[in-house]
Amino acid sequence: MKIAITQLNYHIANFEKNLNAMVKELRAAEKRGVDLILFSELAVCGYPPLDLLEQSDFIEACQASVKRFAALTRETGVIVGAPALNPNERGKKLYNAAYLLHQGEIKAIRYKTLLPTYDIFDEYRYFEPNTHFKTVSFKDKKIALTICEDLWDDQPVASVRERSLLYRISPMEQLQKQHPDLIVNISASPFAANRLEARDQVMQDHAKKQGIPLFYANQVGAHTELIFDGGSMVLDASGEKRDQFTPFTEETRDYRLEDLFQPGATGAATEKPVQYSEEYRIEMIYRALIFGIRDFFAKMNFKGATLGLSGGIDSAVTLVLASEALGCENIHVLLLPSKYSSAHSITDSVVLARNLNIKWSKVEIEPVVQSVNQQMAPLFKEYAPDITEENIQARARGLMLMALANKTGYILLNTSNKSEAAVGYATLYGDMNGGLSVLGDVYKSDVYRLARHINREREIIPESILRKPPSAELRPDQKDSDSLPDYEVLDTILYRYIEQKDPVAEIAASGFPEATVKKVISLVNRSEFKRFQAPPILRVSSKAFGIGRRMPLVAKY
Amino acid sequence: MKIAITQLNYHIANFEKNLNAMVKELRAAEKRGVDLILFSELAVCGYPPLDLLEQSDFIEACQASVKRFAALTRETGVIVGAPALNPNERGKKLYNAAYLLHQGEIKAIRYKTLLPTYDIFDEYRYFEPNTHFKTVSFKDKKIALTICEDLWDDQPVASVRERSLLYRISPMEQLQKQHPDLIVNISASPFAANRLEARDQVMQDHAKKQGIPLFYANQVGAHTELIFDGGSMVLDASGEKRDQFTPFTEETRDYRLEDLFQPGATGAATEKPVQYSEEYRIEMIYRALIFGIRDFFAKMNFKGATLGLSGGIDSAVTLVLASEALGCENIHVLLLPSKYSSAHSITDSVVLARNLNIKWSKVEIEPVVQSVNQQMAPLFKEYAPDITEENIQARARGLMLMALANKTGYILLNTSNKSEAAVGYATLYGDMNGGLSVLGDVYKSDVYRLARHINREREIIPESILRKPPSAELRPDQKDSDSLPDYEVLDTILYRYIEQKDPVAEIAASGFPEATVKKVISLVNRSEFKRFQAPPILRVSSKAFGIGRRMPLVAKY
Repeated sequence: MKIAITQLNYHIANFEKNLNAMVKELRAAEKRGVDLILFSELAVCGYPPLDLLEQSDFIEACQASVKRFAALTRETGVIVGAPALNPNERGKKLYNAAYLLHQGEIKAIRYKTLLPTYDIFDEYRYFEPNTHFKTVSFKDKKIALTICEDLWDDQPVASVRERSLLYRISPMEQLQKQHPDLIVNISASPFAANRLEARDQVMQDHAKKQGIPLFYANQVGAHTELIFDGGSMVLDASGEKRDQFTPFTEETRDYRLEDLFQPGATGAATEKPVQYSEEYRIEMIYRALIFGIRDFFAKMNFKGATLGLSGGIDSAVTLVLASEALGCENIHVLLLPSKYSSAHSITDSVVLARNLNIKWSKVEIEPVVQSVNQQMAPLFKEYAPDITEENIQARARGLMLMALANKTGYILLNTSNKSEAAVGYATLYGDMNGGLSVLGDVYKSDVYRLARHINREREIIPESILRKPPSAELRPDQKDSDSLPDYEVLDTILYRYIEQKDPVAEIAASGFPEATVKKVISLVNRSEFKRFQAPPILRVSSKAFGIGRRMPLVAKY
Repeated sequence: MKIAITQLNYHIANFEKNLNAMVKELRAAEKRGVDLILFSELAVCGYPPLDLLEQSDFIEACQASVKRFAALTRETGVIVGAPALNPNERGKKLYNAAYLLHQGEIKAIRYKTLLPTYDIFDEYRYFEPNTHFKTVSFKDKKIALTICEDLWDDQPVASVRERSLLYRISPMEQLQKQHPDLIVNISASPFAANRLEARDQVMQDHAKKQGIPLFYANQVGAHTELIFDGGSMVLDASGEKRDQFTPFTEETRDYRLEDLFQPGATGAATEKPVQYSEEYRIEMIYRALIFGIRDFFAKMNFKGATLGLSGGIDSAVTLVLASEALGCENIHVLLLPSKYSSAHSITDSVVLARNLNIKWSKVEIEPVVQSVNQQMAPLFKEYAPDITEENIQARARGLMLMALANKTGYILLNTSNKSEAAVGYATLYGDMNGGLSVLGDVYKSDVYRLARHINREREIIPESILRKPPSAELRPDQKDSDSLPDYEVLDTILYRYIEQKDPVAEIAASGFPEATVKKVISLVNRSEFKRFQAPPILRVSSKAFGIGRRMPLVAKY
């Protein structure tokens, strides 16, 4: 039996485009003599459709699309994901379903059992969990047809605070009783740089345990915050990974099922999957961010981007990523110096823009700042200068950048990094402005790693930008380290609090002054109100700010 | 048996304050000879704790607080809500639990079965559902101890698109087999002006069906978006509502269980509960918003508020609500006219501020706007004037208001209404600024109703503000009706799309031009990116913008 996996980029609610792309792949597969072609989870409507699932015309469109697709099938079978109506009176209205389409008909429907409802996932908000288990017969094979999380009943955890057995049931334990010949898993599993091994591990464990091949069909694409890298793969009956798709790329590949019962190059799966190197992790973040920007702009039909080039490393890296994603001709950056800006901020920015062949303009903010100060002066006469004046500068910049964005139809990219977003080291309606935050899930120390990765062959980002001490330049001789610990310390504390969810005492016990730990965590908690209004952040870790991390604003912190 | 219900205002993560308040009530109840005192759902930690439930020190604090409370009990029993650790290896880490504390010990724990995961609720994100059913014995009575949603297995729906039977199990059907003597329901059920009858209906149905009294212990308080009105009540064995607490008020009331087996004033429950009048609905929204502002400021320790008074109805109503909530002495408003502002915008605003005895200042935005335009002129010379210039005005205002807020430590209140928020009729980083949106869940037509309610005894808001056609005053003679349908039409279409989730065709079929319906819905969909960065909105309906409505930004709309 010849089985094809197709890793495509779907667009939410774009039924016509999604169906056309799949039918095109189906027709090509028919010509290659493929028996069965696999598309991914909720491919018909795109993932995650969120509350569109509550609109009845959206569900009707999903149903119509599945029927149209079924009618177009001939001898090559199709497995594809779409929502299905719950025929029972009780329970949620929908199931998250996998359809087998063949010879013009819907031949089988299977529902998803394990509904991830944590981090960025809200599937129990929409779907009823499956409780009946039955393999799917296709030609002379029995398929254990599973959907994404269904294979993650025992998942490697990112933190010791998390549970690996989140569910009371294991779909594969149920399905194995029927002696399937292969496992198919159609997925919408988003990218997280620190979860690549976990994915390999989960797939390997299942193939190995059942002693049958596993076909993992994931998707690519970026949906606002979420980036899907694909990474579709095939494992043989020993659990050895025999092939994996190019990340962030639309592809189709064919496999003979029989070959996967023969030993591969290494003979069998090792105990643990290959560990990816630190270099690979940075390379993947780099590629994910570029892909995330590009697909956001493509799907939103945006033509170009603008951003403020400060002379610091964050805006420099953001610009390089945007330039790779959108092309240098579709970017217009502003240099917005104030009286506190150092001379090298300007010269470094100009060098960078020239290196990348990016259009740049310099605009003075001082007249605007002075005009605001002058108008407010009668109200402020009893007050000393404070952070208000710093915020006015940041907001004047935000205003000018938005003016350029509105006038040109370009989208303002936000350049804040995760460390700053964590401790609230940014001004709301000022440098927090933007339609998309590029580095909001990248800690400052990783921003430096990205910069070095960018410069690995030639100096694109001027070395002086990498070497200067970070500064917001909002008052004379200001440095980030005046009010924050050094970034390596800060990032470690942040990672342990945000990603690992470690208690204060444990973080402090590992070698940081308790006062520093408490101060950092207090800054994180007290900045919830700022992040509430932050732009969407491209997610590259397993715990990004945004919809995946929901903290109360009004709490005693 | 004497049973007390205590309706308190809890503060998330403020264990000390929550426990002290409960212990104080317990001691007073002991003196009154109360047998059992009821506190509400997750009272120990406050509701909703959101992802704080993933922090292990938070859970430890919950556990410690329950133990301390238990140790303090004597002859009066306590029922109180707190998270409980799941002792099983499989499933989520926590249960949402009700504890019976008595004679210094934890005597019983019951877990919540139905975990609301829709709209603003995310309980399955954190909790494992209960599957074992057992009444709780206290003195000689058997209590069917339920937590909030446990009684909502068959709920009156707000829209025909929704299901009333969201769950496959009914906790009361299970518990009734053990012949309980009374039903206790401890809740954290938020306010929605259009769901008051539904709550009465649910409680009445259960009491009537089981033929036993029901004690409903809800809480009051505002937690950012969510407002809890309380409305705790007692129903007799016939299902008649015998008493209900004052909304938005901390109270304790005692009941003799025996009395609730005797007929009340009307003898028995009617088929349907009383319908609340339209006037009552507006009065409740008015009180909810005032309570929401007041509690947000109290819990966040904010001392005062600022806002921009435009001469329009939204900022006028917001100011009245803020003044009621915070006191006129804690507010400082800005009048920020531009060259397009009408003379009456200023005079009306001044009259309003004087009526309320509010400090006001007038600040010119024109110099700032001109300064921005001047700096941007070299970049804009090939472009015609467009919406950019309107946005610059709105953002200049936002900048000045934030400057005042930063300088004084006051919080900027956002004055946009739900109709504007829906169609994106507002400027990001301009009039969308604010720490809290007061009217973001109130349609424009209800804003007028609120204004009339405010003016019911004397003219607080100048009548001319109620009578003038709505305008953003960002260009000469601009009116909202230039780009939007009349508000009565707009609001009906919005309500049917957002609250009722009706398809375009059905809305159009009910008498609106299809083009108008399509345009409105398209505006709603295309404004998702703006709402993504909007301030938290005080929720008074069953479908507010914010965490309760999650729509993709990147979709084909």
